[in-house]
Amino acid sequence: MTDRRKGWRHIADYADKPERLLVGLMSGTSVDGVDAALVRVSGSGRETRAEVVASAMLSFPDDLRARVLDLCHGAGTPEDVSRASVALAKEYARAVSAVLAQAGVPADDVDAVASHGQTVSHTVGNGPHRATLQIGDPSTLAYHTRIAVVSNFRTADVAAGGQGAPLVPYVDWCLLTHPSHSRAVQNIGGIGNVTYLPADAAPERVLGFDTGPGNMLIDLAAQWASDGEFAFDRDGAIGARGSVVPRLLDSLLTHPYLTAPPPKSAGREEFGKSFFDALLTDWGPRLATRRDDLVTTLTAFTAASIADACDRFLPESPGELIVGGGGTRNPTLMRMLAEKISPVPVKNHESQGINSDIKEAMAFAVLANETLLGRPANLPSVTGASRPVVLGTVTLPP
Amino acid sequence: MTDRRKGWRHIADYADKPERLLVGLMSGTSVDGVDAALVRVSGSGRETRAEVVASAMLSFPDDLRARVLDLCHGAGTPEDVSRASVALAKEYARAVSAVLAQAGVPADDVDAVASHGQTVSHTVGNGPHRATLQIGDPSTLAYHTRIAVVSNFRTADVAAGGQGAPLVPYVDWCLLTHPSHSRAVQNIGGIGNVTYLPADAAPERVLGFDTGPGNMLIDLAAQWASDGEFAFDRDGAIGARGSVVPRLLDSLLTHPYLTAPPPKSAGREEFGKSFFDALLTDWGPRLATRRDDLVTTLTAFTAASIADACDRFLPESPGELIVGGGGTRNPTLMRMLAEKISPVPVKNHESQGINSDIKEAMAFAVLANETLLGRPANLPSVTGASRPVVLGTVTLPP
Repeated sequence: MTDRRKGWRHIADYADKPERLLVGLMSGTSVDGVDAALVRVSGSGRETRAEVVASAMLSFPDDLRARVLDLCHGAGTPEDVSRASVALAKEYARAVSAVLAQAGVPADDVDAVASHGQTVSHTVGNGPHRATLQIGDPSTLAYHTRIAVVSNFRTADVAAGGQGAPLVPYVDWCLLTHPSHSRAVQNIGGIGNVTYLPADAAPERVLGFDTGPGNMLIDLAAQWASDGEFAFDRDGAIGARGSVVPRLLDSLLTHPYLTAPPPKSAGREEFGKSFFDALLTDWGPRLATRRDDLVTTLTAFTAASIADACDRFLPESPGELIVGGGGTRNPTLMRMLAEKISPVPVKNHESQGINSDIKEAMAFAVLANETLLGRPANLPSVTGASRPVVLGTVTLPP
Repeated sequence: MTDRRKGWRHIADYADKPERLLVGLMSGTSVDGVDAALVRVSGSGRETRAEVVASAMLSFPDDLRARVLDLCHGAGTPEDVSRASVALAKEYARAVSAVLAQAGVPADDVDAVASHGQTVSHTVGNGPHRATLQIGDPSTLAYHTRIAVVSNFRTADVAAGGQGAPLVPYVDWCLLTHPSHSRAVQNIGGIGNVTYLPADAAPERVLGFDTGPGNMLIDLAAQWASDGEFAFDRDGAIGARGSVVPRLLDSLLTHPYLTAPPPKSAGREEFGKSFFDALLTDWGPRLATRRDDLVTTLTAFTAASIADACDRFLPESPGELIVGGGGTRNPTLMRMLAEKISPVPVKNHESQGINSDIKEAMAFAVLANETLLGRPANLPSVTGASRPVVLGTVTLPP
């Protein structure tokens, strides 16, 4: 009746395997779909080696996306949460199948699926009711994939008094710590975030926080400048055409987020639509005939906010800045960032053998690797937790 | 950094331990509080031996109870679900501490906590969106108890196409199957439910379903008959005083639930306040001067519905009826049941060495025992699942 290969003995024996195969799954705040990365992992901590063997992106059906977005916006009953959790897990299972099919790897060869889940609530401020909720039912996922599932990575850190985020700095520490010089690892997604890795760092010396806007403001400005034709500034073309408006840039650089000390995290609340709309009220009329200038100025602001964070909050100028995320595909932003942060050299993740497009899905495979070794993988210096804790829960396949 | 005693190796080595110590936690639909049972378990399946070493009941704070009841009634956002899940887990942790303190057992000696959690949504009818949601964050529980947690027992059975319930019949099969004669194990809580165990039964021959009302209707009638003075018919005193109203009893016995074939489950929807109120509309005026008769008649109906279910749906008259639950403290109900089911002998759980008051908490310790052995513990013949599956997820302590 019991397939020992799939039981707890198999989980315990995981530690003895020189090489392990995991599927990392990440479904982010945009709720577009789920990224799946088949990852070959060995070692642990700074000895970790992780190689993405294959990757796949699966878009969610529109109705599911709408249901999940409603939940993220605080609308929906416990029943809606429960049903969406199962529906998402079925999509995750399809993404696992897709990436395994692409790689020609049978499910039996995979040690575990590392599922971040979909965050539908994250309330980790001060007070007695700190909590975070990721949905995507692991039993459903394990049932349909026939693979053990590691999930709910953020709850243990929150239980230990942390923010439950960010968790990727641990993975940066594993994979990108340099033996002899420090590094800052800058991700530019909707929001920008940085991990600071001292040379040959012990984990307790790693820092990590959101630097401010990533592509969020540039996207909104590009939409405005193109009258809605473009969703974002492709290849940084609009930003390259316009000019920086110095008075606007100066005013943006007084944003209180920039001077607030870490730990700190930013989101749509700080740099989303309502911030942009307020900006337009002031500056829209003045820039009506030179809309590109708003894109250029916000690109400069984004670059400056990253350089400013490094200046202000890192204990030293990093030996290198390793950039990743969608923002690296905006050459205007990259040029401005390189100028601002000079003489610190700027490199991309690919120079370190990491595909930045699939980095988050890969990162959760690395975090699950630690979970399956029974090792803590939060960084109290980054999340604010009182101690290191083992992250996640494990669900056996049927 | 890693305490191997608490890691996956410890979980895998669980199978080699001749005797294991678990804390079972059950918080039921009334949301009054949580029952904790410290249970010494050995074996597996029909070789299982389970002994309750100590037990404790912890009441929830009123505000938490109110928040959770709101969720159960479909009111509350994803944030409310998330926060209540953490708040409940902290109460569960207190219940674990209480039962360990009472027994003088250190947390380090306990292999795992088996946490049923609080069901806030259970929608397992036909259709594509079948799901069940139990809250009580296992990471929070593991963090505060420093003990591994087994939780979310129902989701895997639902993923496998089952109702996710009932799960206790598996435990009845483990502990109460008789080698040479069949048994029916009848629980009388708010609702009545039965497990049928053929002599020396293989698991696939076990049946289980809700028989109909348990104490629910008797309680409501006692409240009415006493003008709200009594919450229930203590010692069956009111029921013993009144007389059965034959026309009312006959009419109750035509309730379609009684003839519906299993698998079936009953709840407040079938036998709750609205059913009782409709009954009062018809019969209240006629019984105004002899209200006790309503209590007596509903007690007789409850007894008859149990005997009727045995007659109608069990493949044979059971060799014994083993009763448990609060209803066993109503001698009037017990007398009527014994009459109705005669010549089948009626025994209580205590005659089998099981304290029926703490049975459910103990049952989840037995289910967790199977989870930790990597063994399935649902009964497809009872839940309707397509196959046996390993139940639950495991969360390591920090």
